[in-house]
Amino acid sequence: MQAGRVTRDLTPAQRIAWLRLIRTENIGPVTFRQLLNRFGSAEAALEALPDISAKAGRPMQAISQARAEDEVAGLDRYGARLVGQGEPGYPEHLLQISGAPPLLTLAGGERLDWRRTVGIVGARNASSAGVKMTRVLAGDLGASGYSVVSGLARGIDAAAHRASLETGTIAVLAGGFDRIYPEENIPLAHDILDNGGALLTEMPLGWEPRSRDFPRRNRLVSGLSLGVVVVEAAKRSGSLITARLALEQNRDVFAVPGSPLDPRAEGGNLLIQQGARLVTSAADIIEVVSSADPARHALFEPEWQPDEAAEQNEPAPDDRSKLLQALSTTPVDVDELIAQTGIAPQAMQILLLELDIGGQIEWSSGQLVALRYS
Amino acid sequence: MQAGRVTRDLTPAQRIAWLRLIRTENIGPVTFRQLLNRFGSAEAALEALPDISAKAGRPMQAISQARAEDEVAGLDRYGARLVGQGEPGYPEHLLQISGAPPLLTLAGGERLDWRRTVGIVGARNASSAGVKMTRVLAGDLGASGYSVVSGLARGIDAAAHRASLETGTIAVLAGGFDRIYPEENIPLAHDILDNGGALLTEMPLGWEPRSRDFPRRNRLVSGLSLGVVVVEAAKRSGSLITARLALEQNRDVFAVPGSPLDPRAEGGNLLIQQGARLVTSAADIIEVVSSADPARHALFEPEWQPDEAAEQNEPAPDDRSKLLQALSTTPVDVDELIAQTGIAPQAMQILLLELDIGGQIEWSSGQLVALRYS
Repeated sequence: MQAGRVTRDLTPAQRIAWLRLIRTENIGPVTFRQLLNRFGSAEAALEALPDISAKAGRPMQAISQARAEDEVAGLDRYGARLVGQGEPGYPEHLLQISGAPPLLTLAGGERLDWRRTVGIVGARNASSAGVKMTRVLAGDLGASGYSVVSGLARGIDAAAHRASLETGTIAVLAGGFDRIYPEENIPLAHDILDNGGALLTEMPLGWEPRSRDFPRRNRLVSGLSLGVVVVEAAKRSGSLITARLALEQNRDVFAVPGSPLDPRAEGGNLLIQQGARLVTSAADIIEVVSSADPARHALFEPEWQPDEAAEQNEPAPDDRSKLLQALSTTPVDVDELIAQTGIAPQAMQILLLELDIGGQIEWSSGQLVALRYS
Repeated sequence: MQAGRVTRDLTPAQRIAWLRLIRTENIGPVTFRQLLNRFGSAEAALEALPDISAKAGRPMQAISQARAEDEVAGLDRYGARLVGQGEPGYPEHLLQISGAPPLLTLAGGERLDWRRTVGIVGARNASSAGVKMTRVLAGDLGASGYSVVSGLARGIDAAAHRASLETGTIAVLAGGFDRIYPEENIPLAHDILDNGGALLTEMPLGWEPRSRDFPRRNRLVSGLSLGVVVVEAAKRSGSLITARLALEQNRDVFAVPGSPLDPRAEGGNLLIQQGARLVTSAADIIEVVSSADPARHALFEPEWQPDEAAEQNEPAPDDRSKLLQALSTTPVDVDELIAQTGIAPQAMQILLLELDIGGQIEWSSGQLVALRYS
């Protein structure tokens, strides 16, 4: 852990309240943080939820205490634990990314180096040359003291984990802990835990990964890493999405080149043309990441601000209708909305939070907001 | 030819005088220019040569009129002509490089586009994938109106010429016109001329190329080109020398990537790591060179200044010994020599020219001068 960073354990009751809140429909990491900032605690936010969702025209409840306790008990059986943002065991690099999960489900990894980390991603239908290159890179990174992060997919991901089993490997799942995908990698997942590696996910127990969950998972692969290496990737592929996310998170992006005659080299070559660093050996990576500090270069401030909610200016009676009038399905900047409607900034924040929880708006790029297509 | 550039034909007598001067021992392109600047013409420089070389302690003669006329007659039999710097047929891009040859031996190429030119170089022991990539690049560049420049070597060079035979190709020789190397490419040389392409060299008729002549040739390949593409190259190879020369000449450098597991990709990958542009198609090259203008970006002023020699300050009687005292085998800046010895700049220039012709000094990086190891 970084010197000077304040961490504190959640109480069991707080952890259950956090879990209930984050597992509730329409509440993602950003809304979760806004709720905690406004109401001061997850418990208070849970109490307020029926009221503020009703204001947005769509009354809703958080998931029940019993369901949350069931998940905790279930995770226990898998040897997994929940770790909250701000707790000592929460991976520090993740604090620096936009939309970091408030709660992670985590197993193993107690003695891993979570700060010296390199992500390796690539094609599921990897060539034997790609697999060999991955083995060389992951093996040499491990031998140099770096933990290897990947997504437990077929091909390059699996090769990266296998080559770093003994030196430290971190697998990020797209689904629940009991829904490892692909099934053929379940034995590899066990090997990872048996060797002191880590498995983690932000998704609930029992969650079957859908296609949209993979890019979501990828932002954690890059977010956990100082830099991300793309080994083999087609021009449109999840690996390129990971590379883009890594850039947005201000991580170093590396790519292994290949012959232009090889379709599996297209993505990597394209990344290099766009500014990724060409990699031929682990030394090329270490030279760069050894001086990388994602905290210092972070584009985003740590999102979790565990201070008490400031006094709020409640919205005026007609503010909500004014705001709905001003919104459309075209994303618009919040500052522009404030200027147009004359709604006070604090009141605007409250109204948007309510509409968000009510499922009526969606955010893009942090500061742009639009009505949801219904 | 560039609008506004003044060109003029040499008279037959001037051409012979130029040839005698440049074919003389110790007189390279830079010394040639200094002599013309000082004496106003090659004829005058030839007359002065015995005297100034004697001053440097090593009396010498230019090659004879008869020998020069023999070369011209010999070139005639090969259908080749001599073209001088400043003449209309002299390739314009070459005017921008340091040490451009005063005289080129040239055959064919009358209807080539000498301004839209791309060099392609690479391994002699090319792989079939490398040859295929070269065919694709040279073919597509040709189809887009670019002339392809290369060195008529085995492997990549030959593939580049063959793929651009019909659209325009320029082969630069490392030896004399009658000493094409390797011999297996003599038929290709004939094909180039038969298809309107060009063969050129700065070396005398009958000159058998030695190993040091190949890098010398390579500076003309890059100098003739808007940009140079390296297709397959080992880590220490002539192709990398060409790339370095191209950078010094402010040309764009491109490299085709390859798997780090393939030794023939090492040079290209290294170049990309050092800043060369990664190339997967001719479009990647055209995008860059279509807006390149070597004249505008030239690091060097055109070297040939056909003005009359300015009045010279002759050196004082003891200046020569002062200068020889100050010189050593460690290269030193001319300005520093002037400051140390108190010799007037004009006199310094004359003395250095004499010592140069006398074979007593050598230049490095344009402005650094040292005693030759004897």
